[in-house]
This record gives sequence, C-alpha cells and structure tokens, in this order.
Amino acid sequence: MAHVFDIDDPADPRLDDFRDLNSVDRRPDLPSGKGLVIAEGVLVVQRMLASRFRPRALLGTDRRLGELAADLDGVDVPFYRATAEVMAAAVGFHLNRGVLAAAPRPGELSVDEIIAGSRTVAVLEGVNDHENLGSIFRNAAGLGVDGVLFGTGCADPLYRRAVRVSMGHALLVPYAWASSWPQDLEMLRDNGFRVLAMTPNPVAPTLAAAMAELADEKVAMMVGAEGPGLKEHTMRSADVRVRIPMSRGTDSLNVATAAALAFYERARLDP
Amino acid sequence: MAHVFDIDDPADPRLDDFRDLNSVDRRPDLPSGKGLVIAEGVLVVQRMLASRFRPRALLGTDRRLGELAADLDGVDVPFYRATAEVMAAAVGFHLNRGVLAAAPRPGELSVDEIIAGSRTVAVLEGVNDHENLGSIFRNAAGLGVDGVLFGTGCADPLYRRAVRVSMGHALLVPYAWASSWPQDLEMLRDNGFRVLAMTPNPVAPTLAAAMAELADEKVAMMVGAEGPGLKEHTMRSADVRVRIPMSRGTDSLNVATAAALAFYERARLDP
Repeated sequence: MAHVFDIDDPADPRLDDFRDLNSVDRRPDLPSGKGLVIAEGVLVVQRMLASRFRPRALLGTDRRLGELAADLDGVDVPFYRATAEVMAAAVGFHLNRGVLAAAPRPGELSVDEIIAGSRTVAVLEGVNDHENLGSIFRNAAGLGVDGVLFGTGCADPLYRRAVRVSMGHALLVPYAWASSWPQDLEMLRDNGFRVLAMTPNPVAPTLAAAMAELADEKVAMMVGAEGPGLKEHTMRSADVRVRIPMSRGTDSLNVATAAALAFYERARLDP
Repeated sequence: MAHVFDIDDPADPRLDDFRDLNSVDRRPDLPSGKGLVIAEGVLVVQRMLASRFRPRALLGTDRRLGELAADLDGVDVPFYRATAEVMAAAVGFHLNRGVLAAAPRPGELSVDEIIAGSRTVAVLEGVNDHENLGSIFRNAAGLGVDGVLFGTGCADPLYRRAVRVSMGHALLVPYAWASSWPQDLEMLRDNGFRVLAMTPNPVAPTLAAAMAELADEKVAMMVGAEGPGLKEHTMRSADVRVRIPMSRGTDSLNVATAAALAFYERARLDP
C-alpha cells in the first residue's frame, strides 16, 4: 500500500511536484520544466501504474485514494491526501478529476525497440498539437497499433494535456524519436515494413485498396501535420501513397481522425 | 461587392454583433445570447456565404477583405474593416484568423427535410461537447453523410466553437432536432432507413460485417455520449447493433472518432 500523508497546507513543500501546473515554467515539456510526467484522474493514474513510468508521488482526495486502493497495493509511493480546495490551491486550478500522479521520465526507447516485435506502427511528422497527439495515442491503443515513431516537428507526448487526451495511452503505447529523419524510415524497411504515406492526391489508391494488398506484411502508416501534410521529401521516402476517399467539396480531415481511419482499415478484418 | 466601412474605435456600435464574444452572456447558444451565428476565418466565412446562413455583417482586416473579394462579389453586406488591435479590443481576445461574420439564425429544418433525399444520416444522442459536435460535422461532410438528426442532450452545433472545429461544415451539413425522442426514429424507418446503434458489446457484429449487409439500403448511424453511450431505451430502438473491433485492454474511442469510423465504413467502397 502507498504511504498516506494528510496535507492541510497548500504551501507544503511535499506538494512541489504538483505546484502551479498551468504556469509556463512548470510545463514539463519545456526546458525550464521539471521533466515530470503528470497523470490526472483515476483511469490515467491506473494506466501510469501499469506502465514503465514509476510515480514518485500522488496527490488526491480521500475518495480517489479509496478508488485506487487495489492499484496501489504493494506500491511504495507517498499518497498526499488533501481536500479538493487544498489541491486547487497547490495546483493552481480546480481539478475535477481528484487525483494526480507525478513520475520522472525514464530513458527514451530506441527506434529499434519500437520496431522489434511490431507488426503495425504509426509514424508522425509535424504533429505539434498536444490534443491531436493525445488522440493519436488513444486511437493507436484502441485500434491495434504496436508503436509510434516520431519524425521531426512533433510535440511532446508526455505533456500533461497529451497524456490526458490519450486517456493515459501515451504512457502505454511505446514510442521513439527518429534520430535521423526521414533516413530512419530505412530502418523500418530493413525490418520488412512497407511505409505508407497519407496524401490528399485524388489519383492515389484508396486506403482500402492499398491496405488489402498489405494484409500479410508489416506496415508503417505515416501522417503529417494538419494543413501542410507530409513534407515533400518525406512523401518521396514512402513505398505507397494512399488516400482517404473524401466527399466532393471537402478538403481534409483532422490529422488524428485521418490516422484513426488508417489504423481502423489495418485492423478492421481482425475478429 | 460588400460595402466597406473603416472602423477606428473599438466601441463603435456597428461592431456590437462581435462584442465580447467570450463572455457568457454573449454566447449565442444561451438564452441570453443574441442568437447570432459567428463564422471565424476566411475558409469558414466562405462556407457561411455558401450556406443557408446569410451574414448581416463582417469584421476583418484589410488583408482578409482582399482574400474574400471574390466571395463577397454581389453580396449586399457591410464589411467593417479594422486593424487586428481594434478587432481584439471589440471582440475581447486576439483573433488570429483576422475575419468574422455574424448571421442571424434561419428557421430550423424539420426531420422530414433531413430525411428526404438522404441515403446516409448520422443520429446523435447526448453529444454535449462543442468540439466533438464540430468534429462530427467535419467528418460527416468529408465522409459522405447527407444529414444529422439530433436526439436529446446534444449541444448547439451553431455555437462559435462548434462551427470553428467543424471548419464551417456545421453550416453546410443539414441537421434537425427530433421533436419526440426516440420515437422520431420511426420516421427514419418509415422512409426505408435501417437504424444502426454503436455499442461496446463484444458479441455484436462488427461495423464491417453489418455495413456490408446494408450496402444497398439507407442507413442511419446512431452514436451516444462519450462514456455512457446510448441510453438503454434508445439502444433498444435500433435495428442493428454494431461494434468497432477494439484492442484488448482498451475501452472506447472518442465519440467523434467512433462516428468517423462508422461514416468511413459506410463510404469506403465508393470510388
């Protein structure tokens, strides 16, 4: 069981990991941030406890402590128990989820580690919006994607908002940053992957047609920033370009939605 | 061409349609709001001009006026030209899209009007989040849905945030509110529609299997609130229950994503 400490004073230094979470210099993804990963809410805290991220402190109400009792059994971590008011004063805003966990960042995984044992990966370039990034992780988890590879221009998937929108799956779906982009796509190919790029080009084959041909192969699905899409050079590095059939008069879908359709098409004939 | 008026004073009463857009009593979806529909940005303003919504005033920078010149040709509406600073002072926040249009609400369409001529409709219950609602309209437009029917508990699709997230498609994809719910589903059935309900139940047929059987029929795809899903009574009113195949250990997708997958499955074999 976690060690429970009651906290009455929002200024208590034991709450420093959770202090002023909205202020820019506490954003863990920025250089001045502490680098801590914050999980919010019972479900996301449960997923953090099941992940490779090891919380070093929790802050929550007595009610949330009760809901997490089974998950915290045998976990050696302090649980700072406080009222919603004390929590709000320390954190800097009212939390309606009632519990937070803070974990240091473990070492990053390598591209090799993502590729090994994966059959389906998502590859992202220029996805710099935390909500889109969080949605992509949630969709990846739900729709059978084994791992995520980041090219250039992507936001930090461990930022609080991304973790929250991902429902904690940013902590569970393994990911790695390419060290050389887009050259690292070669590592996928060397391991038997076929690299698909999503394009709005109306003469490209549809997602359905392309994915049917690749049913027995390893597949990497590449999506680019909303608006500009994949860079020209990256697009040229793909093996196959595919399009989502769109109604006339419409331009594009949100990047997380487009990725979800690709993941779904890949997974749809699984039982 | 629109009539251009230069405005230097943010307090000019001609800007009243655009004043303090973030304050609660100006939210057009609330009873105290003015009921005006606000379009933001060149693309969304263009879609408003192409829709049944008739703007009664525009406010924007000279640059945006230039970009909209062709769209405003022959349109009898005042364009209040101002600097970004004057706009921010009137609106109450900095707008990075540089142009707004305000339109009164036209009369609501009827359920009959949505059904007539439609082959594929989306039916929403309890979708009370403006972003999800906006996303659903964007996805509906891109993936071939002809109209949207609202059951109970849905937010206003004409609220500014919903219109923005929809990329203006909330103004273009026709929708109606059910007057009697879920009894109005009978109107769909009377017009030859088969009503599908999305369910997390793992023994339900998959979206792919169910949609293949209905390829030649009219289809209504029903989704419920994120979290609780469709109400029991509504679920019982459906003809077919379908599930999205999900990875083990995951619970559900975002409601707009789940709807997008249903729309996609319906449309995927179209050229």
